[in-house]
Order: sequence, then C-alpha cells, then structure tokens
Amino acid sequence: MIKVGIVGGTGYTGGELLRILSTHPEAEVVAVSSRKDVGRKIHEVHPHLKGFYDIEFVLPELKNFDECDVVFTAVPHGEAMNYVPQFLEVGIKVIDLSADYRLKKEVYEEVYGKKHDAYFEAVYGLTELHREEIKKAKLVANPGCYPTGAILAAAPLAEKELIERVVFDSKSGITGAGASPTDFTHFPNLHESIVPYKITDHRHYYEMLQELKALQEDIRISFTPQVFPGSRGILTNAHIFLRGDLEEGEIKKIYEKFYEGCKFIRFQESVKLIYVRGSNFCDISIHKGKDRAVIISAIDNLVKGASGQAVQNMNVMFGLEEDEGLNYPPLFP
Amino acid sequence: MIKVGIVGGTGYTGGELLRILSTHPEAEVVAVSSRKDVGRKIHEVHPHLKGFYDIEFVLPELKNFDECDVVFTAVPHGEAMNYVPQFLEVGIKVIDLSADYRLKKEVYEEVYGKKHDAYFEAVYGLTELHREEIKKAKLVANPGCYPTGAILAAAPLAEKELIERVVFDSKSGITGAGASPTDFTHFPNLHESIVPYKITDHRHYYEMLQELKALQEDIRISFTPQVFPGSRGILTNAHIFLRGDLEEGEIKKIYEKFYEGCKFIRFQESVKLIYVRGSNFCDISIHKGKDRAVIISAIDNLVKGASGQAVQNMNVMFGLEEDEGLNYPPLFP
Amino acid sequence: MIKVGIVGGTGYTGGELLRILSTHPEAEVVAVSSRKDVGRKIHEVHPHLKGFYDIEFVLPELKNFDECDVVFTAVPHGEAMNYVPQFLEVGIKVIDLSADYRLKKEVYEEVYGKKHDAYFEAVYGLTELHREEIKKAKLVANPGCYPTGAILAAAPLAEKELIERVVFDSKSGITGAGASPTDFTHFPNLHESIVPYKITDHRHYYEMLQELKALQEDIRISFTPQVFPGSRGILTNAHIFLRGDLEEGEIKKIYEKFYEGCKFIRFQESVKLIYVRGSNFCDISIHKGKDRAVIISAIDNLVKGASGQAVQNMNVMFGLEEDEGLNYPPLFP
Amino acid sequence: MIKVGIVGGTGYTGGELLRILSTHPEAEVVAVSSRKDVGRKIHEVHPHLKGFYDIEFVLPELKNFDECDVVFTAVPHGEAMNYVPQFLEVGIKVIDLSADYRLKKEVYEEVYGKKHDAYFEAVYGLTELHREEIKKAKLVANPGCYPTGAILAAAPLAEKELIERVVFDSKSGITGAGASPTDFTHFPNLHESIVPYKITDHRHYYEMLQELKALQEDIRISFTPQVFPGSRGILTNAHIFLRGDLEEGEIKKIYEKFYEGCKFIRFQESVKLIYVRGSNFCDISIHKGKDRAVIISAIDNLVKGASGQAVQNMNVMFGLEEDEGLNYPPLFP
Repeated sequence: MIKVGIVGGTGYTGGELLRILSTHPEAEVVAVSSRKDVGRKIHEVHPHLKGFYDIEFVLPELKNFDECDVVFTAVPHGEAMNYVPQFLEVGIKVIDLSADYRLKKEVYEEVYGKKHDAYFEAVYGLTELHREEIKKAKLVANPGCYPTGAILAAAPLAEKELIERVVFDSKSGITGAGASPTDFTHFPNLHESIVPYKITDHRHYYEMLQELKALQEDIRISFTPQVFPGSRGILTNAHIFLRGDLEEGEIKKIYEKFYEGCKFIRFQESVKLIYVRGSNFCDISIHKGKDRAVIISAIDNLVKGASGQAVQNMNVMFGLEEDEGLNYPPLFP
Repeated sequence: MIKVGIVGGTGYTGGELLRILSTHPEAEVVAVSSRKDVGRKIHEVHPHLKGFYDIEFVLPELKNFDECDVVFTAVPHGEAMNYVPQFLEVGIKVIDLSADYRLKKEVYEEVYGKKHDAYFEAVYGLTELHREEIKKAKLVANPGCYPTGAILAAAPLAEKELIERVVFDSKSGITGAGASPTDFTHFPNLHESIVPYKITDHRHYYEMLQELKALQEDIRISFTPQVFPGSRGILTNAHIFLRGDLEEGEIKKIYEKFYEGCKFIRFQESVKLIYVRGSNFCDISIHKGKDRAVIISAIDNLVKGASGQAVQNMNVMFGLEEDEGLNYPPLFP
Repeated sequence: MIKVGIVGGTGYTGGELLRILSTHPEAEVVAVSSRKDVGRKIHEVHPHLKGFYDIEFVLPELKNFDECDVVFTAVPHGEAMNYVPQFLEVGIKVIDLSADYRLKKEVYEEVYGKKHDAYFEAVYGLTELHREEIKKAKLVANPGCYPTGAILAAAPLAEKELIERVVFDSKSGITGAGASPTDFTHFPNLHESIVPYKITDHRHYYEMLQELKALQEDIRISFTPQVFPGSRGILTNAHIFLRGDLEEGEIKKIYEKFYEGCKFIRFQESVKLIYVRGSNFCDISIHKGKDRAVIISAIDNLVKGASGQAVQNMNVMFGLEEDEGLNYPPLFP
Repeated sequence: MIKVGIVGGTGYTGGELLRILSTHPEAEVVAVSSRKDVGRKIHEVHPHLKGFYDIEFVLPELKNFDECDVVFTAVPHGEAMNYVPQFLEVGIKVIDLSADYRLKKEVYEEVYGKKHDAYFEAVYGLTELHREEIKKAKLVANPGCYPTGAILAAAPLAEKELIERVVFDSKSGITGAGASPTDFTHFPNLHESIVPYKITDHRHYYEMLQELKALQEDIRISFTPQVFPGSRGILTNAHIFLRGDLEEGEIKKIYEKFYEGCKFIRFQESVKLIYVRGSNFCDISIHKGKDRAVIISAIDNLVKGASGQAVQNMNVMFGLEEDEGLNYPPLFP
C-alpha cells in the first residue's frame, strides 16, 4: 500500500485527489495539509467526501508527512517550490501539480516572473509522452490542464514533423480558475457567455511550445483559452495546417499508432466533454477538410488535466498498472 | 421631463435602473453616484450601456442631486437611511430600493438588527396593491423581490379571507445575491444545483406577513427561498390550503377581478421565467388540486422585483401612464 | 459472480446501470437488449462507455437472458409488464425500474389507466425501509425518483406519527424526462427557467401516499414537481407541519435513529445536489422554524433515484454488502 | 407607418421579429403566417408576447399580405424561394432571412444541393458593408448568423489586404439550431459541454468567402462552428495571421475608421455575449500578440445575427434612421 500525502488539500485539485484516492486499491492518503483548516475533518471542507475519510487537516510540515512514500503538492504556482525540496531530500517522491517544475528554469523565471533558487530537474508528467522517464522519476511536474489537451491533440503529427502551423482554440470549465470566488467565477459573469482571456499570452503556451518543439523543432503554435459556462472539462480545437497532403484515414492511422496501448486515449467519431467527465480519458476526434485538419480533444480538466493524471503518474512511478484506481467510466450525462 | 438621480449606480439594481431609464420617454438620468467609481463613465462600469450615457459617477452628496425631481436609492440595507432624509427635506421624492422603509419601525429594527433614528413613514410600493397611496407619496419603499412574487400570488385570495395556510416555495436567479463575488455566487457552487438558504427565517418573510395580514388578519404563512442556476427571475409556488371549497374557475375569476386594469399582471396557462425575462410583467398561473390551490407567479427579480417596479412607481407618482418606458416585451428565449 | 441482464439498455437508467455495473466486483452484465439497436456495440449508443463493454445489444427475448441470475427491466411504464413475468417464471429474479409493480393493482390501473393482467406482488424497493423483505424478494419494484427523495425526507417523522401535513416541493434535473428530445427537454425551454409541471396531480404522488400512509395512517400529503436547468439530481423540500412541539435537536435524533446503519443516508448542515452527484447517497438536512420543520433531501435522480438503488437492491437480494460496487464518492463540483 | 408581413412567424427568428417590431415606432405588423397555427393568436404560440398583438396567424398566401410594404420571410432554407418571387412581382419589398438569396446562384445550388429556378439578384444585407445598395434594394438577403460575426471581425483588415490567413473559431447559443427539439438541442446533450459540428464544412463558410474575397481576393479562410450551453449569442475568435507587421494601435485605428458612423458597432476592452444580449450591437475587441492578431466579435445571434439586422435593413430600405426601433440597451446580466 502506497502511503500518500497531499500538500494543499482544500482546492479543487486537492479535493479531486482525495476523491480519486479514496477508492484506489493500492494507495492510502495518510496526511493532508491546509494551513487555514488545520484540525478540521476532511468532510468539513469537502462535504461530498463525508464517510470516506476520518483524518484531519495538518500543517504542511515535513514531520506530518514523514511516513509518506509520495507527496502530491497541490498549491498555487510559486508556493510549491517551498515544499518540494524538503520531501525530495528525505527520499519522498513528489508529484507537483503546480507550474513550478514544468519549464526549464530560465523559461519559468521569465514567464512566471519569479526566481527559482532551489530548482530541480523534473520529468514532465504527460504520461503518454514520457512514460519511461516517469518510471524512474523522483519528481514529476504534472502538466497544465490546457497543455494536456493541446499537446495530446497535436503530438502525433508533430512527431512526424507534419505541422506547418497549429492554432489551439481551447474552452475550459470554470473550475480551472480555482475554488475562490472572483469576478471571473461570479455566476452572472459566466452564465450565457463564453469568455476568452489572456487571449494572446497565456502561460500555458510555453508548456505547449516546450513539448511540441521537442517533437518538431520548427512548429508554429498559437493559443487562445476561454471559459465556457460549465464546471468541468477542456475542449481543444487544434486547427492544423499540414505540411503536405494527408487524407483523413492516414491521419487516423498516425494517431492510432502513436497512442497504441494507451489506456486513456480513446478515439471517437465526435467527442463530447460529458463523455469524459469525471474520468481520466482523453477523447480525440479527427477531421480533415480541404484547408486543414482539425483534431479535437476532450478531457476533464480536474482529472486528466490535473489530479487524475497525477495519480496515473503515481501508478507509473510505483510500478502499478497505469489505470489502477482510475479504471471507471465517465459520468454521463 | 422628469430629472432622475440614482444613489448607488454600480450594482445590479442600479445598472437595471440605468438600462430601463435610458429609453424612458419622460425621464432623464442626470446624476448617478458611486463612491468607488467617482469620475468614471457609466459604461466603464456597465460595458453593456456603452453609447447610452455620457455622464460620470459622482459622490452621493446632496449638491450633486439638487436638480433632481426624484432620486432612486439603490444601496444596501442600512445605508439607504443615510441618504433618504436629506432628499426628502429639500422636496425631492425618493424611491428606496433597499429594505429600510418597508417595515414598521419596530419590526425593521428587530428583523434587521439596526436602529432607525430618522424613520419616515413610506408607502409600500407594490404598485398593484397601493396605487392610490403611491400617487401622493413622497417616499416609496420599493418591495423586496421575493415579497413581490409571493404577495401578488396570494393577495386576491387573502383579500377574500379564503386562505387557511400558504407555503411559499420560491426560486430566485442568483443576481438577487448582488454583483460582488461570494461563495454563494461562485459558479461551481450553483451550477447543477439548486440551493435553499435561510430556510425558515428569511427577512423577506416579514414583508409578506405585513402585507398579507393587512388583507387577512388570521392568515398563516410559511416561506423558503432558494437560488437556481440562472441569472434572472423568481418563480414562486404558493401552495394555498383554502378555507372552503372553490373550483379552479372561481379562483380564476377572483384573480381576474382583483387585477383588473393592471397592465403588468398577465395570466398564463403555464408560466415560465423566460416568458417574463427583462420585462416588468408578473405572470400568474392558477391550478386547483384536490388538496389545495397552487398559484405560481413568475417575475424578473431585477425588473418587477426591483428596478422596473421602481420605475412603475415613479410613473404613478408623477402622473404618467403606469407602463411608460416599460411597455416592451420580455426577451425570450 | 452474479450474471446480470438489462432489458432496455439505451435510455438514461439503462446507461446508468451499465456505468455502475462496469465496476461492480461481484456482478457481470451478460445481456443487454434494445429493439432498435440490435447488433450494435454498447459504446455505439453510449460513447462514454467505450472500452468498458464488448457485447452487443440483443432482442429482449427470454432466450437471450437465460443464463442471467437477475434482470433489470429499464423500459417505460406499461412495457415492463410484458417482460417481467417470463423471467420470474423461469426463476430469474427481477428488479423493475418502471412503475408497473410499485402500486397495488387497483391503484396502478386507475393512476396509469392501464389493465394489469399478469400482476405480481412485488416488494417496494426503497431499501432503507424494506431491507428485510427485499432480501427474500423475487421481484423488486424500484421506487420512482421523486418518491425516493420525498419518502426518505419524511419517513422518520411519519413513523412517529408526528406529521400534521407535509408539502413536498421537488426540483429535478431534466434527465428524469428521458433521453428522447421533446419540447420539455429542448435546451432553450429550460435554460434560465425552472419549470413546474403536473402541478397538483403527478403519478408519483401515489407512491408517496402508499408508503407514508403505511407509517402514519392519517398523514396529509401535497406534492409539486418541477425541473431545474441541470441534468442530474432531485432536491426535495419537505415542509412539515408537526403534531406537537419538537425542537430541532429532537428531530435530528429521530432521523439518526431511524437511519442508523444506513450507509447511503448522510446528514449535512446544508445539502447540495453536487455533493451527491453520481453517487448513491441521499443527503439530508434538518431545519426547524417557528411554524414548521423543513427537511431537505438531495439525491442523484439516476443513481439513488433509479439505477443505483436498483443495484443496492440487487446487493441485498444476493446477500452482498449493501454498498458493494456503489461505495465511491460523488463527483463534485 | 410601414406595413409589415412575416412569412413564418412561429420559429425563433419569427418570434424575434415580432418582439422587435412590437415597439418599432414606424412599423406595424399586419400579417403573420404559419401553416400549422392558422387561426391561433400570436400569444398562443409566443406566450411572452401576450398583450402585444391581437392578430391571428394566417396562411402564407399573397392575398393575406397584399397591403404590406415589406415582407420578412423567416422560413427554412429552400422554402423561402417559394414565397419571395410572388411578393417581388407585386412590388412588395422582401427581406429574406433564409440562405436562399445570399450566394451566387451556382454556388447556392452546389452548397445547398437544390435547384433555384426563380433566382433573383439580392443585396447581401450585412448593413455595415452594403448600406448604399440596401437603400435601393427590392430584395435583401439577410446574412447568416455566423457570417455576420465573422465578416464584421475581419472586414477592415481584409479591405486593406492585410490578411495572410484567418481561422474563425465560433461559438453559438443553441437557438441557432431552431425551435424544434432534436438530439442536438436536447438539454443533457449540451449542458456541461461545448459541441463542435460540421467542423470543416459548414455552409456559412461560403458566405464568408464570398464577402471577404470581394474585399481581398487572395484571403485564406478556415471556419469551425460549435454550440455552447447558452441560448443566445455568437462569439467569434478571428485568429488573423497578418501580412506585414502591425501594432495593436494601428489595427484599432483601421477598425475605427472602417466602422465610423456605424451605430451598432462598439469597441470594448473585452467583449462578452451578455453585453450584447437582446440588442443589435456587434461588440468587437482587438488583441495583438507576437504571432497574430485576434479579433473577437460578439453578437446576439437572433438579433444582429438575424431579426435585428433584418429590421436594420428595413430601416435603411425605407429611409428611416438606421437604429429606429432598435436603439435600446442589451439585457445584462
């Protein structure tokens, strides 16, 4: 039984880790921290989990996590770096759900505007692309939600160096903006709307760039995120202008081959966010028009886009079946 | 042309007054206050109104409103009482959208837990019930949103003293909770839910009691409010246990007679919130079962439940047609 | 391993049975019927289940189900009675999700306007109330969605004969109206609305009456259903006028005692539909005002209100743990 | 007073024409047809319009429209061509809201797969682009909803021949799919999703192509439509790869100049569908990144995208102020 700790257990990704791990047959959550909720029971913060945990929130101090085999850090960007090193130093593996270890040090410092004094090399935890490195990793940088959907949509064509240009137009559920109320998450501001933001300069762009350039050096990428009036899910339209002429059938073969054996990649005629909700699947549909290919990916932003993929990575790191504890269907409708 | 001032122009009711009055043929908004937005143009706070106003927000001081014929106070409960007296003293009529003048002084002080040193008698501005008094009023206390829907649903039977007991189960759009983000208005907390609150003790209960007891002294009232995942509208189910046996047709006649000549009361086979959205109508449907009558009312909480009724009252106070500037259809769907 | 058949596998309750049973450790779905989809794979009708089933839809004929230990009939009211007897006759247990066996024969025929020539006595499958009879049952009539939420909210007080009158005001997600498009389920007709229907005469009323009268003969019940703009969930406000004076604490004790040992009943300070979504829980909150008690129950209409409770009943009938295959947390948010 | 007829008055665009024209000071609806509703009052089909019309639906025969100055045809594609010629022949002006006259005859016949025996040349009714021709037109082909948003977003840069390539990624409210229930409009199929369709081959593409090529012959266009879970609105992201280097300020100037004097074009820092809902405005925001410009337009698909623009065109055809009867603010929130 893997002993699991969670640093930052009150947000949506923390809550989702708790939900997923509550039924994982080979893992047990033994410590969860929250500075502001120390001493409260899990279900006092997460009423939906009533009956599933009997432990209390603790402070995010090493001594409270010392029996852990692995710690998930689910705190905001810039905070994770305060916790990660102490765990690594005592031999506890870490899966970081923040952005702190996803980018090369220099890129991180420029994009996030923050010094990174105790930088560690991490494996970028997009499991389908880096499975072998994750097996041996001490520190996994769990990917951002948008990059997960975008990279999975474009990687097979990029690996073949077939992409002239790709425009990612992505739509996320609002849980991506976190559990704290803001103008952005205020119900009347989202209802009956679909709201683009950081239209030409979202930070997740750099993750896409780093990963896709590793596959095709001369790829050109554009990205615009937006939120739609729903809680969960990211739908990404990858408008791909191809190098050379490919038929739809050929593209499909490239994707099937690339993702062979990947349990969480499913090909659908038409993807739909509610076909993946609550699950770790990334559904993909492939469409070829006269001018371009459109590859559409659908994930649950809190599962494959965050906590589910984190658990998938834990499984890989500990030699379990990749879908252990994640092998259940989406909640439709 | 009536010169209008608005104290508190940044919230939803302030914005809705600005929307409605922008096309009112006999009224002109000459002053709008907002402490935190002084000097900003209207459309910088309300982008949807771009092109309709050229004025700037001012401080809520008397000198900024001295050319007004009437002032609408659209500030939170407990604040309106700081502004209302100064306007009344210089002969400016006031329509207060807060709760400060809706209840008898003693009841207010107990229910709202606040002293009311400069209390004025006001006319309760449920236009259909108090039209004649409103004509002569200097100060109108505009009704709460829930009371508007509830009282209009029950008043005709109460006036005939036919009600044994009434249970109001009301569902409101979330704009009733205001324009500032809170846990309550946080999108994921409302989406896919319907959330009861102040289940047995909402303050609006006392308005219903005051108005309905004036019609039928021995009426018994119960009330539970809740929010549904939508922005606008209040649907009220009035479950009415009748004194004596009445057929559906008889009840309908009582309602038609009671509301004769009322331009904003419409009877429908089935009411629907989107049949009244954006308009000042109160749609009513009447259903009689073996055990009880169910009267259902539908209003737009920001219009008939707030700013629209306020303008309706202004029309009555200034001798205009009651539906002047309000005579347009709802926005469906 | 229990061998399971499903008659009617294309609707929402059929799909939900398939979802739940796909991870049930002691049950295996061996046959699923759908007249119109014979020969198609499960995931061609339910794309979210891709990867979970390899079988094809068959005709609803006995020979296709003859290896089953239990059959779930998930077809419309009036159709189930065409299938149920043939299974019972060959010793296959049946859990019927339609209304065909929930009511006494005479009541059924009057309420549903249909003759019932091959009527069987069934156990009413509200597990918390009839666990002992379900253990021995050959035929379980799975309760309606509204009755599940309403009866669970009122039963403890009814058993003590403490209810003068109860008004159930219930709000359901639209999946209760089925998977076929109608004016009722047309998106623009529900969005931004909350729609009452069958306001004084819904058929589920008779289930509530039958069950609650068995606990308290002189109880008086009123019921109004409505749909809110969400897919899943039923929230029921039970406005209960009490016989005698009870404090909130006393009521809570009555409920805790009544539901002692019931794994799927949870008490919450405030219930919320998204705290139970996707799970078999019925969350209950208890509120006492001056005039009445309000008991609020929240269920997922497709799980505890249909397919989840059906599986719960299967567990009981086959001597498994009551929560086998159902013991996972809700999907929040 | 312009006497107006509407052929096809039961759908969403017909209902919206009735809503808008009910308060138009210079127009009066004198005839509305609906084959299936002949003899019914307007409000029996459109309950939200109760109190605004006293006429009944008639058959779509010329004799019922012979006193009209103008007829709006709001029937499905392929049907309008059965009505339009008869009106033109007797000198009644026509504004057609279908696709039947938007494209060149040969293009129409290929794209819509239908012969067009009685083809008339029409003016494409995108008012901001063709105002002068509309003034003199007998037949106006009112633009499609997606083309309205897309063309208005790209036209100023196209006119300057500055576009290398543009990708339109558009999101529409579901009312664009019409008032009849289908799998597409079924609430649970849209809720919590955002659904792309006709991903590389939507018919509206040819309108965009025709209009934008007229401005810049060598423009390259890509288009993907999708529906989001809301009733009204189309948000279009125009990802524009520019020929040459332009700063954001220069682009803004180009747009301001191009739309000078256009009452329904508004520039916003950030557009939002609820800032235009119910109104005839097209709000535009302009964003320049390193790789491309993103121009975002927001319209109400039923107003500027259909019936509102049709009335705008009527105003122009009859020499009225362009915003007569349309000069009111959006309904926010």
